[in-house]
Amino acid sequence: MTDNSFLVTDRNKVKRTPLRGAYDREAVYAVLDACQICHVGYVVEGQPYVTPTIFWRDGDTLYWHGSSASRMLRTVKAGVDVCVTASLFDGWVMARSGFHHSANYRSVMAFGKAAPLETEAEKDAALKLMMDGLFPGRWEEIRPATKQELKGTTVVRMEIDQASAKVRNGPPVDDDEDYALPVWAGVLPARQVCEAPVADPKLNSGIAFPENLAGYLPK
Amino acid sequence: MTDNSFLVTDRNKVKRTPLRGAYDREAVYAVLDACQICHVGYVVEGQPYVTPTIFWRDGDTLYWHGSSASRMLRTVKAGVDVCVTASLFDGWVMARSGFHHSANYRSVMAFGKAAPLETEAEKDAALKLMMDGLFPGRWEEIRPATKQELKGTTVVRMEIDQASAKVRNGPPVDDDEDYALPVWAGVLPARQVCEAPVADPKLNSGIAFPENLAGYLPK
Repeated sequence: MTDNSFLVTDRNKVKRTPLRGAYDREAVYAVLDACQICHVGYVVEGQPYVTPTIFWRDGDTLYWHGSSASRMLRTVKAGVDVCVTASLFDGWVMARSGFHHSANYRSVMAFGKAAPLETEAEKDAALKLMMDGLFPGRWEEIRPATKQELKGTTVVRMEIDQASAKVRNGPPVDDDEDYALPVWAGVLPARQVCEAPVADPKLNSGIAFPENLAGYLPK
Repeated sequence: MTDNSFLVTDRNKVKRTPLRGAYDREAVYAVLDACQICHVGYVVEGQPYVTPTIFWRDGDTLYWHGSSASRMLRTVKAGVDVCVTASLFDGWVMARSGFHHSANYRSVMAFGKAAPLETEAEKDAALKLMMDGLFPGRWEEIRPATKQELKGTTVVRMEIDQASAKVRNGPPVDDDEDYALPVWAGVLPARQVCEAPVADPKLNSGIAFPENLAGYLPK
């Protein structure tokens, strides 16, 4: 733990395999920034809901958005307690016993209360932040948002109150006596990759794939 | 909707862009079976938590497991309301306006109450089901579970009470007048792939990569 860690209480304390847990901002940010979507947990009349959504981050602030008619957004913008979890599956860990099989993964649980951005200017600025982070330069190329579009869009921000990161990587850890078994063991890694862009069938001729999206071309 | 659909109520009704929503088992199963991890939502004293975990399915029954000390498992096995959400990110949808940018994705929200498997035999059978689904033949190769391991493992099952699938795919849908803009539009697809297996550094010599894991080799 460093001075740059989130406060640890029972809510965000990693209880199982605590060596895998981290509370410093660097670890939490690294996982959040590697995820395209998060899962927003909230409660309506005692019933938990978990809604997947894209999100973006600025310091300790998470943003997500959608239609103003969304149940998730209508609920969370009232300032209720929210848990935002983002996870990446990195592969299967193949051990010599079933018990020590596992998954490699990176995940973050972040706690806080969300609040809606109130003005159209605030919403527009937050959406630019998302776009600039994902697709540098695109904001300047596309048709600007209309007043009506901004009105119909809810953008919420959540200051991260507490968070924890949990990561597993590396080979299996077997019981000492099992290493002698004639069983293949190791990791079956998984990774998300970009596939070749698919131009809109309605794309006008003569419009080239933009250089500022080159990061999304297959490696 | 077919006869093979989950009951639709306010809880699982897809409210936004309802054309993307489906309630039939075929659609729900297809998404669940494509996901390695799910996000389990539950409530402790009013606070929502969302915990990622691997899971498996048998008909309308979802299973997940972990250490008996897990807060998530201790909570959900008491039979509280649970929301299990599984999602896959399939790519970015690049439109001619910010408003019509989107993500392609597949997701399922499933509602129910979980219950613990009580006997060691039940747990062992459920774990075999997971293993057989993921890694055919491996169960017979590995060291069987001990009584102690099964005691320390909680396996829960949740009969899906209600569920909905939500899917977006295909090109952007822009406003009519925006198609004339000189902006590249289309999809930046993403996909999860297998990378080359990494043998355990402690693997004994002479143990080949097993044929029954060939499905996990890079394509």
